[in-house]
This record gives sequence, C-alpha cells and structure tokens, in this order.
Amino acid sequence: MKNPTNRVSFRVRYAETDAMGIVHHSRYIPWMELGRTEFLRQYGFSYRQCEEEGYLFPLLAVACQYHAPAKYDDLVTVETTLKAIRPPYLEFSYRITREPDGLLLVTGETKQICITKDKKPRREPVKKMEEFFRHLN
Amino acid sequence: MKNPTNRVSFRVRYAETDAMGIVHHSRYIPWMELGRTEFLRQYGFSYRQCEEEGYLFPLLAVACQYHAPAKYDDLVTVETTLKAIRPPYLEFSYRITREPDGLLLVTGETKQICITKDKKPRREPVKKMEEFFRHLN
Amino acid sequence: MKNPTNRVSFRVRYAETDAMGIVHHSRYIPWMELGRTEFLRQYGFSYRQCEEEGYLFPLLAVACQYHAPAKYDDLVTVETTLKAIRPPYLEFSYRITREPDGLLLVTGETKQICITKDKKPRREPVKKMEEFFRHLN
Amino acid sequence: MKNPTNRVSFRVRYAETDAMGIVHHSRYIPWMELGRTEFLRQYGFSYRQCEEEGYLFPLLAVACQYHAPAKYDDLVTVETTLKAIRPPYLEFSYRITREPDGLLLVTGETKQICITKDKKPRREPVKKMEEFFRHLN
Repeated sequence: MKNPTNRVSFRVRYAETDAMGIVHHSRYIPWMELGRTEFLRQYGFSYRQCEEEGYLFPLLAVACQYHAPAKYDDLVTVETTLKAIRPPYLEFSYRITREPDGLLLVTGETKQICITKDKKPRREPVKKMEEFFRHLN
Repeated sequence: MKNPTNRVSFRVRYAETDAMGIVHHSRYIPWMELGRTEFLRQYGFSYRQCEEEGYLFPLLAVACQYHAPAKYDDLVTVETTLKAIRPPYLEFSYRITREPDGLLLVTGETKQICITKDKKPRREPVKKMEEFFRHLN
Repeated sequence: MKNPTNRVSFRVRYAETDAMGIVHHSRYIPWMELGRTEFLRQYGFSYRQCEEEGYLFPLLAVACQYHAPAKYDDLVTVETTLKAIRPPYLEFSYRITREPDGLLLVTGETKQICITKDKKPRREPVKKMEEFFRHLN
Repeated sequence: MKNPTNRVSFRVRYAETDAMGIVHHSRYIPWMELGRTEFLRQYGFSYRQCEEEGYLFPLLAVACQYHAPAKYDDLVTVETTLKAIRPPYLEFSYRITREPDGLLLVTGETKQICITKDKKPRREPVKKMEEFFRHLN
C-alpha cells in the first residue's frame, strides 16, 4: 500500500530568487502549500471550499531540508505525499525536484490542524478524508 | 501649508533581494504600505482599528518610479505624504531614500477607496480624516 | 498590425492572499514579471540566457490599476503585450483576467532598461528584439 | 554560561498576512533571517561584509513550530540564540513573541553552512566566530 501522492510542475519566478542568485529558502514553503492544494484537488477535495464551509487548516509545524538550490526559470516539480491522518491532524511530506534531470532540491514536512473560525479543533473534516483514503487503497 | 508627512526607517531584509543582488522591484510596494500605517499612527489613526470597525481601504492604483536600487542591509527611509483626500478616496505619495546619504531610490503614488466588508464605498471615515487634517493646518 | 502578445494562466496561491481575503496588491507585480518571461520564451528569447550573457533588465517604472480582486485558487490569465521598443528601453502592458468568466482584475505597464552588470546602458540586445518583432509583422 | 542572544522588535506588515487574517506561516522565516542579521551586527560581525568578502551562508535546514498566530500591526520580538558552531556549520534557534504580553508565537531552528561563491565549504569564517564567542564567555 502506497501513500497517496500528487505531482505538480511549474517554473521558478524571478521574484522568488535572492541575492545569492538562487531561490530564497523561505520560498519553498508556499510551493509546499501549492502542492497541498493540488493534492486535495486531485482527490476531489477543495481547500477553498473547506474554508468557505468554515474550516481552516493552520500549520502547527514545518520543516525543510535543503539539498540543492533552484534557480530562476528552472522547471521544478513538487511531489506531495499524505504522510499521516490523525483527526484533527493532517501531515504531508514533500520532495521538490528539478526537471528534467530529477535533481533533488528540497525535502520537507508539514503538520496541520483542522479548526473552525472561532479556533475550535474539528475532527470531522479530517475523518472524512481519512475514510476516503482508506477506501482508496 | 505643507502636506502632512511621516518618515519611518528600517533595514532591507535579505529576503527582499533578488538575483540581480538588489531589492526586487515588487518589494517597495509593501514598504509604502508600512509607510501608510506609520503615517496614520502618527496622527492618531489606526488602520488596524479601521478594519476592526468594518472598513477596508483596498488600492485602486499604484505607481512606482525606480531611481536607484536598495541593497541588503541598507538603512532606508520611507517618507509618506498625504497627497489628496476626496472621500471616499485617499491618495498618498512616497519618497524612499537611503541613509545616511539620502540617495533617492524610489518615488511612488497610491490611490485607495474606503469600502465596507460588503464592498459598499463609504465616505464617512475618509471625511473624518479630511476634517482632522484641515484643522491641523 | 497587432502588437505581439503572450497569454499564460495559473492558479492563485494561498501565500499571495492578505487579511482582506484577496490577493495582496503587491503580488500582481511578480505575475507581470512571469508574463514577461513567458512572452520572451514564446518568441524564442530567454531572459535567463540574457542574464547569463551579462545583460540585466531592471525596471524604471511600474504602474497597476486594480479593477477587481483575485482570490485564492482562482485561475487567472496574464496577457502581456509588447508596447514599445526604444533601445535601450523596453515597455510592456498587461491585462490580468479571471477564468473562465474573463473578469478584468488588473491592468498595468512596465518600463525597463537594458544594462550590463557594471550598469552601462546597452542598446544592442533590445535592438535585436526590435528587428525580430519588425520582421514578425 | 549562557548562549549569546539578540532581541529585535518590529511591527507586522499588512503584506505579511494571509486570507486567514493572520501572518502567513512562510513569513516567519524571513523574520528569523532578520534576527540572524541583527545577532551578527550586535557582536560586531556583518553578514553583508562576509558576502562582500566572498563567503555565503546558505541554509541546510529550517524548522518552525507555530504556537499562536501574529496579526497585522502586532509588535513582535525575535530572540535569536546561537545554538551551535561546528565549522563550517552554524546553528541558531529562535523564539518569536508578541509585545507587550510576551505571548509565544513561533519557535524555530536553522542550520547553515559557510561556502565560497564556487560552492566550496569554508571553516575559517565560522572558526573566527567560534573563537570570538568562546572568549566572550
């Protein structure tokens, strides 16, 4: 049984670089977020719709390991993998690589919690995902 | 009669630079926003409180002219001047300079409108400012 | 004779929104830059290669007019049009719209100058583009 | 013996917030970088000067734990502590709090390596810091 995964590719923007001539280390974090959005879309979930229904998924923790730098105009791929679901918690891991040679640029992990707008933890939306992914396998 | 003005200084962050080794041109726009916040605070207004009372001030237009580049760790000053108040519109102009030599880096202008959260234009909050600044002179 | 144009589409990232729930006004500027990159690629030019050959294209001016806000996960299109070439200057205009309804979000203009790394203006690289686009029509 | 520490305070910028109405989780990473810059300045080192001498300090890893969200216009303090020096490696830890109540917002850690512009690891600049801080205690 393999963990569900999404792959999304895009080009590095000039505004994402810094004075070292490489992508600024903080800029990979929004790429992971983009990866999560596309992961959810692929499996029929919409983060935007979740939010419109009153659920938020703020981050509790993020970690990044930098292996090689991305540069302006590189074509990069973010591979997002569902690592663990423990309602109300949701964990993803990420591998960011360069195309076409597959050079590993960054690995990372995030942990999120599902809450309502008044900051109460909510297990239900994450449970629904848990069941969906259990049946998928 | 001089237009009311605020000056605020801070250091350029590394994350604000790009691969040309200078501050990315988009990064001066949040500095102008920071200038507006400090302008309002200086005269006893709070943009944050305005928002909490239900008023928003989205931008209708921005323009920047780039004269010389700022670099990482430069001490820069944003001078924010109230250019025009025509309720519900609010216009500011900006001069961004480098310390201590005063080198002119960027000039700019913004135009905002005061609206409610359901997007209705509101003249009152801007009128209050207009009256305040009329009596100031 | 129509000015050469490129269209590129992508989804709004969560990290591009602000506390008003809409895309922060400064975030459209990197989208215009992305539009320029794709414009040049479409016509066989590479901004990255220009830089590697020692030419930079810093901005002299930018202007944006905000018509309607983009939101998280919106599919947006940046239409980049070559407005004027006057070596060493290069001017583009932009129309940013929402898909699929075509709602106009932002219009804008930029002016750039071609320089070497030691900041000397250079007409040649822009002249080459000028000739290319003259023959295109 | 206490690890050397720097404290720097500033206000949250509107551009740093996201559609949840709080500071975007990626935005704390540049604050840690700002903290490192001020830490070095306090002890007579200049990151900018290091770079001008040909040394770079790219990140190998970053981790953040989010305890409570910062909001627009909050006055925040970044406390940067030198955690470990093992030439060519440099590790810092961070505590980001809100003023004046001291609410803990974010904790984090970074690991950097000192390299030359042609990407060779360099122990000397980090050794110099190591000796400086050993004599400080």
